[in-house]
Amino acid sequence: MAKFQIIILGCGSATPSARHQPSCQVVDFRDKLFMIDCGEGAQSRFRQMGLKFSRLGHIFISHLHGDHFFGLPGLLSTMSLHEVQGTVTIHVFREGATLLKTWMDFFNHKSSFDIEYDIIEPGERRIVYEDSSLTVETFPLCHRTECTGFIFREKPKLRHLRGDMVRFHKIPVSMLQKIKEGADFVKDDGTVVPNAALTTAPDPTVSYAYCSDTMHSVRVARDIKGVDTVYHEATYDESLRGQARERGHSTAAEAADVALRAGARRLIIGHFSKRYVNGEGILLKEALDVFPQTVLANEGLRIDLL
Amino acid sequence: MAKFQIIILGCGSATPSARHQPSCQVVDFRDKLFMIDCGEGAQSRFRQMGLKFSRLGHIFISHLHGDHFFGLPGLLSTMSLHEVQGTVTIHVFREGATLLKTWMDFFNHKSSFDIEYDIIEPGERRIVYEDSSLTVETFPLCHRTECTGFIFREKPKLRHLRGDMVRFHKIPVSMLQKIKEGADFVKDDGTVVPNAALTTAPDPTVSYAYCSDTMHSVRVARDIKGVDTVYHEATYDESLRGQARERGHSTAAEAADVALRAGARRLIIGHFSKRYVNGEGILLKEALDVFPQTVLANEGLRIDLL
Repeated sequence: MAKFQIIILGCGSATPSARHQPSCQVVDFRDKLFMIDCGEGAQSRFRQMGLKFSRLGHIFISHLHGDHFFGLPGLLSTMSLHEVQGTVTIHVFREGATLLKTWMDFFNHKSSFDIEYDIIEPGERRIVYEDSSLTVETFPLCHRTECTGFIFREKPKLRHLRGDMVRFHKIPVSMLQKIKEGADFVKDDGTVVPNAALTTAPDPTVSYAYCSDTMHSVRVARDIKGVDTVYHEATYDESLRGQARERGHSTAAEAADVALRAGARRLIIGHFSKRYVNGEGILLKEALDVFPQTVLANEGLRIDLL
Repeated sequence: MAKFQIIILGCGSATPSARHQPSCQVVDFRDKLFMIDCGEGAQSRFRQMGLKFSRLGHIFISHLHGDHFFGLPGLLSTMSLHEVQGTVTIHVFREGATLLKTWMDFFNHKSSFDIEYDIIEPGERRIVYEDSSLTVETFPLCHRTECTGFIFREKPKLRHLRGDMVRFHKIPVSMLQKIKEGADFVKDDGTVVPNAALTTAPDPTVSYAYCSDTMHSVRVARDIKGVDTVYHEATYDESLRGQARERGHSTAAEAADVALRAGARRLIIGHFSKRYVNGEGILLKEALDVFPQTVLANEGLRIDLL
């Protein structure tokens, strides 16, 4: 099975605490690594998890608060010391690119690799990454500063050939790829064998939405409609719903409501306030009451999406 | 006894490793905290060591390499979230102040405290901090970029009163402070009782020199002559002396040579290359051959200088 895995490197809010690190996660899609947000210390946890810098080609930054950004200079400098080659693309709002570039031009001017900046405009909905099997798209979140979410979607997969029918119709090997892509088979005598008679449905595609930081939003739920797995921030418990709204954050129950409305199969909650010094059980419980397939994020957690 | 303590928060070189964190230490002088260098993650270790942000008023940056600098945005942002009041002064080369200010003006524009910048000029020898009992002065190190060391010196202390003589001469309480400061006592009849008959010598003053990053330098040894405790970088073992010189670093034996030439009482070595995955025993051994009072720095180590 091709790998599509989420790896949590940090799921705390605002400041590092004894329990959690600032926001950072990695999507491992068929051995290509994509980082989402990069709080201070991300480079250390990346290496502790046994991940390879050489496989990291894209970094997506949701917004310009320090707990999602301050790990970038150290990460990029260390990657250069490790003599990583090629290009790393940072998808980020314009001001973030400017600020980071100023530091990197000074501290990392002999970088072993190229840094490219893909500027995300506020409110933009755009495919910011695409290869033969994956897209990553942006959509706006609702935070107290401009903030963007990211949806990782596998592209439609190939249909499965029915071996018996391939043999029966004596289909040449050179045509099999086209048929897996959905083509009919036309025999020498002009007879058309429809694709449905030659193949079975492809494996379902998998998708993942990252929603942090954001207050509760029905519009966000609509934007991620049909996604399999949702990561949604759940900074506070229900008793602090007012504070959540004031600060542009969500409660665990609100995160669960978004997953429910989106028709997701699974919800990962994170971005926990540091007030939950004895664990985030209360957040999990409140989310489970609304959406049963919820898991608590935690540093080191890996979740296979396939 | 008044406190004068060195606390090691990071003593690795270049990049975080499984063994060590980037450069950062704290001088705790009578409960005022002074930070020297601020590698990534400094804020986390500061709090892990139970230190209070509210007591940190001055940060001294030796040079503008990321492993001595990248912890600043996170530290200052977290201090603001903790609603630290007053002023934090950052003593740093001009370009470091400019780079940091750009980030702080954006990420921390609602700072709860004022950030002041004290610009250190390359090569400068100057007292950059002074209060009633301590001075901190700069002196140049020899690295591959401009780099400054710092010497922390207690000011001369008061002489000890001889209680028997104070009573014998019936010295009024109002005069005792002056006598502790070295004044003679003049009786009503004009007789002068010399200070030496009334007091004993003050406690010795203690001093501490921070020398990182630097290659071996006899001039540095001269600049820190007479300092009690020296922290000196010891990035490499003796087999890598050429590489040390090339990269503007020192071997452990070279660090020990500087401590010996300076007439120090104690040497702390740090800034270890990450190649010593099984420990820095070889560095300690090589240093001890030259200077017996050497200790290896380590994260969490506290050394009382009094």
